[in-house]
Amino acid sequence: MRTPLAAGVTGVHVRAVCDGEPRYIGATVDTARTSSNISGYGATDVWWRAEITAVNPVTRYRFLLHTGGPHGSSRGSSLGPSDGPAARGGAGQAWLTAAGVVTHDVTDATDFRLVTHEPPPSWMADAVVYQIFPDRFGRSGQDRPLPGWALPRDWDRDPVIASGPGTSQQFYGGDLDGVVRHLDHIEALGADTVYLTPIFPARSNHRYDAAAFDRVDPLLGGDEALHRLSGALHARGMRLLGDITTNHCGDAHPWFTAAVSDVHAPEREMFFFDPVTGDYASWWGVKSLPKLNWNSGLVRSRVPAVLKRWLGPLDGWRVDVANMTGRLGADDHTHEVAALLRRTLGPGAALIAEHNHDASADLDRDGWHGTMNYGGFTRPVWSWLRGPDLDLDHFLGVPGGVPVRDGRQTLATLRTFAAHMSWRALTHSWQLLDSHDSPRIRTVTGARDRHLVALGLQATLPGTPMVFAGSEFGLCGVNGEHARTPMPWNRPADQDRETLAAYRDLLGLRRAEPALRRGGLRWLHADDDCLVFTRETAQETLLVCARRAPGPPLPLPARATAVYAAADTDTIPGDGPSFSVWRLTR
Amino acid sequence: MRTPLAAGVTGVHVRAVCDGEPRYIGATVDTARTSSNISGYGATDVWWRAEITAVNPVTRYRFLLHTGGPHGSSRGSSLGPSDGPAARGGAGQAWLTAAGVVTHDVTDATDFRLVTHEPPPSWMADAVVYQIFPDRFGRSGQDRPLPGWALPRDWDRDPVIASGPGTSQQFYGGDLDGVVRHLDHIEALGADTVYLTPIFPARSNHRYDAAAFDRVDPLLGGDEALHRLSGALHARGMRLLGDITTNHCGDAHPWFTAAVSDVHAPEREMFFFDPVTGDYASWWGVKSLPKLNWNSGLVRSRVPAVLKRWLGPLDGWRVDVANMTGRLGADDHTHEVAALLRRTLGPGAALIAEHNHDASADLDRDGWHGTMNYGGFTRPVWSWLRGPDLDLDHFLGVPGGVPVRDGRQTLATLRTFAAHMSWRALTHSWQLLDSHDSPRIRTVTGARDRHLVALGLQATLPGTPMVFAGSEFGLCGVNGEHARTPMPWNRPADQDRETLAAYRDLLGLRRAEPALRRGGLRWLHADDDCLVFTRETAQETLLVCARRAPGPPLPLPARATAVYAAADTDTIPGDGPSFSVWRLTR
Repeated sequence: MRTPLAAGVTGVHVRAVCDGEPRYIGATVDTARTSSNISGYGATDVWWRAEITAVNPVTRYRFLLHTGGPHGSSRGSSLGPSDGPAARGGAGQAWLTAAGVVTHDVTDATDFRLVTHEPPPSWMADAVVYQIFPDRFGRSGQDRPLPGWALPRDWDRDPVIASGPGTSQQFYGGDLDGVVRHLDHIEALGADTVYLTPIFPARSNHRYDAAAFDRVDPLLGGDEALHRLSGALHARGMRLLGDITTNHCGDAHPWFTAAVSDVHAPEREMFFFDPVTGDYASWWGVKSLPKLNWNSGLVRSRVPAVLKRWLGPLDGWRVDVANMTGRLGADDHTHEVAALLRRTLGPGAALIAEHNHDASADLDRDGWHGTMNYGGFTRPVWSWLRGPDLDLDHFLGVPGGVPVRDGRQTLATLRTFAAHMSWRALTHSWQLLDSHDSPRIRTVTGARDRHLVALGLQATLPGTPMVFAGSEFGLCGVNGEHARTPMPWNRPADQDRETLAAYRDLLGLRRAEPALRRGGLRWLHADDDCLVFTRETAQETLLVCARRAPGPPLPLPARATAVYAAADTDTIPGDGPSFSVWRLTR
Repeated sequence: MRTPLAAGVTGVHVRAVCDGEPRYIGATVDTARTSSNISGYGATDVWWRAEITAVNPVTRYRFLLHTGGPHGSSRGSSLGPSDGPAARGGAGQAWLTAAGVVTHDVTDATDFRLVTHEPPPSWMADAVVYQIFPDRFGRSGQDRPLPGWALPRDWDRDPVIASGPGTSQQFYGGDLDGVVRHLDHIEALGADTVYLTPIFPARSNHRYDAAAFDRVDPLLGGDEALHRLSGALHARGMRLLGDITTNHCGDAHPWFTAAVSDVHAPEREMFFFDPVTGDYASWWGVKSLPKLNWNSGLVRSRVPAVLKRWLGPLDGWRVDVANMTGRLGADDHTHEVAALLRRTLGPGAALIAEHNHDASADLDRDGWHGTMNYGGFTRPVWSWLRGPDLDLDHFLGVPGGVPVRDGRQTLATLRTFAAHMSWRALTHSWQLLDSHDSPRIRTVTGARDRHLVALGLQATLPGTPMVFAGSEFGLCGVNGEHARTPMPWNRPADQDRETLAAYRDLLGLRRAEPALRRGGLRWLHADDDCLVFTRETAQETLLVCARRAPGPPLPLPARATAVYAAADTDTIPGDGPSFSVWRLTR
């Protein structure tokens, strides 16, 4: 841990909770590192070193910084109390937690977390994920008979129905061989992991109402098409993730049809039937999505078996409605379910939990590797970069639209969400600007320049970028349904080539720079319109500046060499909206 | 929920997490209440009302405050963003959580918590607890043969050995009939609940190394003396709590002696023996305190039976080392243990968990009713009111002594700890100024005046006051051992009568005023040397001012009638150290 000399820190302890009790380990100054001035900011930092022993699967720890009393004087310290009576004995103390430095006491909620559960697959930390909604991405051109529910639409001529009748039935006919046709595009973008929303047979275009879990929808090309897609991806060194509903299935699924038609069927226990009325629990009261009962032994054996069955073609899963899975009234089996799934899948498979508000209480266990970080990334970025004319009435169900927040508020949100999970969980979570469940980032920002600032944050902050197919062309969408635009392969006017180039450059930069994937994060500056931070490894320090509007130039602690959208410089220029990356000279 | 008119709040939603998913319920203005001006602060508040349904045992909720966009303008609002581009649609949003109002997004960690687990016994919310260390409180004068380990000491002449050899063996000979002799004193103090540290046979004066759980130590008068004490208390309408070690027992306990002497004994599973070395796990490596293994069926049946067995004479338990109970390496059974104990004891018994840092993750379940709130009360109060010459080298193991904190930092600590537990858990937790495990508050403050400010906070803030016997006389002690002073019944010079009078007055005030026990809390002001808050019910508003030093007088929103150490006034006077209570005119 390093402290600025100016902070007047005279001693450091690490506080680590072991078997439920905090222990304090004194840190010593790492003189070699301190004098080598590895920080790149002049000889102004002191490096401290301590060893802690992780005796529990998750060890919470933080730093106690002494700035007064027997460790020195609190006078003139930027961490100590600003005034108060002169005092002997430990006058000045501050805590450094994952939320930053505070000079009052705090609970363990924002402690750093050392997690010794089996780590995620190593490829996950380097991944760039590309999300595909199969009905809208690409077509192989094969003619297939349409089911009765489908409302056929023309790929390039019929606009997506954004709400009301037809939203779930409009059918554009994308399929998995259609994805194979565009792998060059995906790879050129810098993505190496394709995430497909559901591919099982269903009675809707989104297929979250699975009618089976044991075969790929023939409308998408069936099992063979999945193997062809997976094979093509794996041949390129790329990966493929599926999307599974562990909270519910569709009401056409044989588990449910058996259960609903016969009170003595073994499958009856798999759902929540009211013994009197025969009514059943479902996702948000939508009766076509009967809720699975994780008290049931059958659910606990059959659902994990589904996830396991598809490993091979798939490299892991995004888990739909993970936040509600196993939760109903007095039941709260979510953590058990997550652990069961991870144990069943083994260490090689990725497991990402959908969670649109705050997943922190469900992470850092032996279950989900990460979450879709809507709360800790999407919403703060939207609130900072939203366009002045944006007029949405909610954000993923939060009423009141997208608030306007300044850079300091944005940083506060980013930090507090990050502080409630481990670094591991943060870096393996998906940082997304939009998805099939949200408006498009281009609609939110209202302009290319702010869109590309958002993209820059996605490409350079900790966490796995997840790009929703089409946003690289600057497509728009006012809600999740509307955002499920058929890809404009044949509509050059709908392809914003400048946006596409920025995606290739910035995601490519992330893939090229280890510091952006695996480096530490340090916030240097936040004002209304500007956020500045570093990502750094032992080898290099990258400096990132995101501006939503022009502002005053900012001093730099060292000479900076241009890396992205910048010139070599001694100050951070004030033009904006802008997104720039430099390498700091050491 | 009420909002100041000046805040410009134009709409309110309640956000409640149901089955893992947030739901938003619109609030409406309660016009009747708003116009009745119940707040006592002029017609400047708006009351909002919404209904939420608690579908889970614990429902986390918070308020979303709209201050702009379709709900009104964010301009001129004290909650909205300070600047930023003019914007349509939900520009201004703030959250009100248990930690206060924020204009950025936060995790659910500080949400309010609606807890529907069976409530604690109703008497607990009104209780004032008096802690007795039996060897040091009172003697009945009965002659009893001393065991070999005991080092006999003279009650009034031999000072307590504060550290080193003899600390656990020094023996002053207090007993339970000696407690009976002083019940008038306890009752006159305003206490209604006596908490006894362990009373089972052991090989130390503190008796945390229980050699049996099935009988009261004959040195204390045995089972009959416990029944006499309990009967005398119950006859006064008072209650009696015991102290149980669920984390360990003593190495003379027959469970352990059986286990250690025979690898095939059924009791072997009750402890953690290394199969190779035969070594066993113990509390902090102290081999006389072998750690109980909560994986063991025998532990899960025998330990709860001990707690259950003593109900009748006892009205509940303080649970020693609750924070470590059931925790070791990969084991984390603490929540199951707490739930098992509570289920076994039934709804009438109190269950308070020792926890010296942060109990919040262990509360608001179906286990502990509350904690000993060292982290969220003792430490912030000490840090604000500590004397300038205090020279302790740690605070309950936290190195660096007691920091010096100003009023704002103190408030920040009080609020953040309170925000991480339910109001129920907070009000049922013990707010203590000291205990048998800590220095005395008089030593910490170094002076009567600051001691009485601390006492005032203890008597008026939410939470159950727990008074360590002797502090009402202003006794001193530099650590837990040193603080276990034999009571100065026969040493009038050691009785500070002014301190005693203040205890009677302030604890009496708490017992007389429902607002201090069951009223809401609102912080009105904090500066370096002054904290001001209200406690209020629908019927009355009490205003409390604590000052550690003189300061400027503060304006009052209404005429205040003197309740404690004050005159009727229109301003809060600036003299200090002082502690005053008024009733606000409505």
